[in-house]
Amino acid sequence: MPLHVYLLPEPVAAEVVVIIDVLRFTSSAAYALAAGARSIATCETVEQARAVAGYRPGTLLAGERQAVKPPGFDLGNSPLEFTAAAVRGRDIAWTTTNGTRAIATAGAPHRDLLLASPVNLSAVAALLAPRLGEDAVVAVACSGREGGFALEDAACAGHLVARLRRTLGDALTMNDGARASACIHEAYGEDSARLFRDAQHGRWLRDHGFGSDLEACGALDALEVVPRWRDGRFVAG
Amino acid sequence: MPLHVYLLPEPVAAEVVVIIDVLRFTSSAAYALAAGARSIATCETVEQARAVAGYRPGTLLAGERQAVKPPGFDLGNSPLEFTAAAVRGRDIAWTTTNGTRAIATAGAPHRDLLLASPVNLSAVAALLAPRLGEDAVVAVACSGREGGFALEDAACAGHLVARLRRTLGDALTMNDGARASACIHEAYGEDSARLFRDAQHGRWLRDHGFGSDLEACGALDALEVVPRWRDGRFVAG
Repeated sequence: MPLHVYLLPEPVAAEVVVIIDVLRFTSSAAYALAAGARSIATCETVEQARAVAGYRPGTLLAGERQAVKPPGFDLGNSPLEFTAAAVRGRDIAWTTTNGTRAIATAGAPHRDLLLASPVNLSAVAALLAPRLGEDAVVAVACSGREGGFALEDAACAGHLVARLRRTLGDALTMNDGARASACIHEAYGEDSARLFRDAQHGRWLRDHGFGSDLEACGALDALEVVPRWRDGRFVAG
Repeated sequence: MPLHVYLLPEPVAAEVVVIIDVLRFTSSAAYALAAGARSIATCETVEQARAVAGYRPGTLLAGERQAVKPPGFDLGNSPLEFTAAAVRGRDIAWTTTNGTRAIATAGAPHRDLLLASPVNLSAVAALLAPRLGEDAVVAVACSGREGGFALEDAACAGHLVARLRRTLGDALTMNDGARASACIHEAYGEDSARLFRDAQHGRWLRDHGFGSDLEACGALDALEVVPRWRDGRFVAG
């Protein structure tokens, strides 16, 4: 039962690919679908997002560049913005600096592609355990930050590894990234406040007025939704 | 006092750059200089190594491709080969799959460039502490394996971080890579046997008849030499 973690975005070979961008895309995407958004199309560029929204009238534009909402966008990248009032029944075209790019790098439309974060960790683990049981190769890809390593993504990957190891035991075969991420989770446990204080991106968000986002992104198992790729978009799985 | 760890080779901005390739280049290079080799020229390709050796008669050729000594080379990449009988007083042109490439990616001749591994960890820490005290930026670059992450390099980086944190305390400012590597060291401590059993490269070497190399590469503080870059070559620092 091969469980592979990639600490930075890279093309991965696996039947199931889990993308993690704790701060903030995969967290916010889970909140959006939990709040009733119909679908999320992830776009690499601001221009692509505008083009996707152009195809399908009524589509909301969401995302960030340098943590800020691009001109003309309806929503930024904060989990707190994706309320039922804002998104229920709506399609969203979404572009971010790290998360949606990681999907383009590590994901591929013909595979089972999921989005994970602390907010839906147990729901993701529950989906993965039977797939690993069928001996599918599961890859967990950390988005990182501007091409570099991000501590909070690795810690979340490690949490997932720990959960699956508890269920599947020694039948799980782990690559070096999986073992490393498990060590990071072991060190922080469920103390997301300490994790975000230590993590560069957590400190940056706090210093730039996004402190309240951290609490929402670290809320372990707050949601039961798993964003899954279906026909070119993420929907509630 | 900025201490940055990079878990994969990438160009780094720092006054002091420490390269780690535990299995096996930076370990073997330390053994070679401790055994009296005069200098080590690191080369990206087998052809470059042959060219360098051609310039300076008497130069030994060392290194590997897929762990095997290239045709016509004097020495492979095993720490056990670099005995005084083999290398005393000799210059070495050396090329490996991961370590010497990491130097080309992360290193730059105008900076202070050091090679570290468990075998010279305390000696490297002793050199770094005063540089950090002068507020030089110190970067530790893990070589990884075939472009991917390697657990043993990160664990060694984390050991270095732990040592320096003990000396310098909270004055040390760490990036996400430094914090992650410290967690990995914390999980394995000085148990290099367990580390190499868990690490993919450790298992590969054991399975391919290089088991005795693992003991030599994991021998904590066996040597006092620090390979340092001087005029285009590594010499005993």
